[in-house]
Amino acid sequence: MRRKEFEVSEPEQCEEFLNELHDGVLTFIGADGWPKAVPLNYVYHNQAIYFHGSKHGEKMAGLAADPRVEFVAYQAHAFIPSYFSDPYLACPATVYFRSVRIRGIVAQVEEADEKALALAALLKNMQPEGGHAPIDASNERYVGSLRGVAVLRLDPSEMTGKFKFGQNLSDKRREEVVQGLCQRGLPDDADTIKRIRDSALKRPKKNNSANA
Amino acid sequence: MRRKEFEVSEPEQCEEFLNELHDGVLTFIGADGWPKAVPLNYVYHNQAIYFHGSKHGEKMAGLAADPRVEFVAYQAHAFIPSYFSDPYLACPATVYFRSVRIRGIVAQVEEADEKALALAALLKNMQPEGGHAPIDASNERYVGSLRGVAVLRLDPSEMTGKFKFGQNLSDKRREEVVQGLCQRGLPDDADTIKRIRDSALKRPKKNNSANA
Repeated sequence: MRRKEFEVSEPEQCEEFLNELHDGVLTFIGADGWPKAVPLNYVYHNQAIYFHGSKHGEKMAGLAADPRVEFVAYQAHAFIPSYFSDPYLACPATVYFRSVRIRGIVAQVEEADEKALALAALLKNMQPEGGHAPIDASNERYVGSLRGVAVLRLDPSEMTGKFKFGQNLSDKRREEVVQGLCQRGLPDDADTIKRIRDSALKRPKKNNSANA
Repeated sequence: MRRKEFEVSEPEQCEEFLNELHDGVLTFIGADGWPKAVPLNYVYHNQAIYFHGSKHGEKMAGLAADPRVEFVAYQAHAFIPSYFSDPYLACPATVYFRSVRIRGIVAQVEEADEKALALAALLKNMQPEGGHAPIDASNERYVGSLRGVAVLRLDPSEMTGKFKFGQNLSDKRREEVVQGLCQRGLPDDADTIKRIRDSALKRPKKNNSANA
């Protein structure tokens, strides 16, 4: 069951997350009818997800027959051990995370200029310091490579974020988790505490008078 | 196109990787016929992948109608900038990674003892220090939770590892990448260099006389 309290309603938050990450999993129905899960580097550019890869193989065969996909990017932020809030039961153990799932249709980009722009955006994501000739369809040293590579564009028809940072907890339990993270002090824990505080502020209040 | 030189032939390497990671993406065909990508925590236990979750919702509805899945675990190890081996073209930019894809049928675990064992294994993975009462189907404080949670078991029918660490490069290019990583010195780069060296040793030799 998708718990509504973890869902992100602002598309900006999903887009910010997509701009931070570099890889995700593309899911489609294979030519054999089975679901397929392929990890890929991506870039979120001009409100689309771009990938690149070989022009042949299971991905291209599957997508040619059925271009419906779901793409997911996921980041685990903190494991929350059960004893942060319960000295006996294991049940509260969980992971705080962010994920964005995108549903849509994938199209193969055929036009050399769009291919070059997408590959340039993809590389800028990974290699912002540069150190290479600009990827340009008019540069003859790139023409062969651009022709040989497949570039895929996923146009999102639906985007769903799920950011779990203790929004389901009572104020008391959430404070216990924050104290646990404070004491543990792993490299990401301070960032997680900030996210827990921000998420609590955004949480719809069930009883406004009690929180006024 | 799946490049054979990156494929891992020893199941032990896949299992070692599955034991290291804690999350992956479960892919199935939804009740609406679309492919679905759900990030999940998992444990590899008794040669099966176990997950847990709610008894209701899109995952359970989809899997009840079609239990065929693919599960993938992925870890990026190092971004390799193009200029490590080419001062001009962007083309050599890549990511070194490990991934394991598992195809099989998912079944819901109904028996309380197997549920408890799977959840105990899942938690031991994340919380090896303990700090909770053992998850035991005969402990009355766990009975309600065990009844309320869904535990899923994926029995692998096919497992494919892809570990990319420059196996496709010439000795000269590979050495340039190693030198680049050496100089960059990010926290994971020493580990990546070790993996590049190990992978080169395991690579099938195309010309044994030249390498004798």
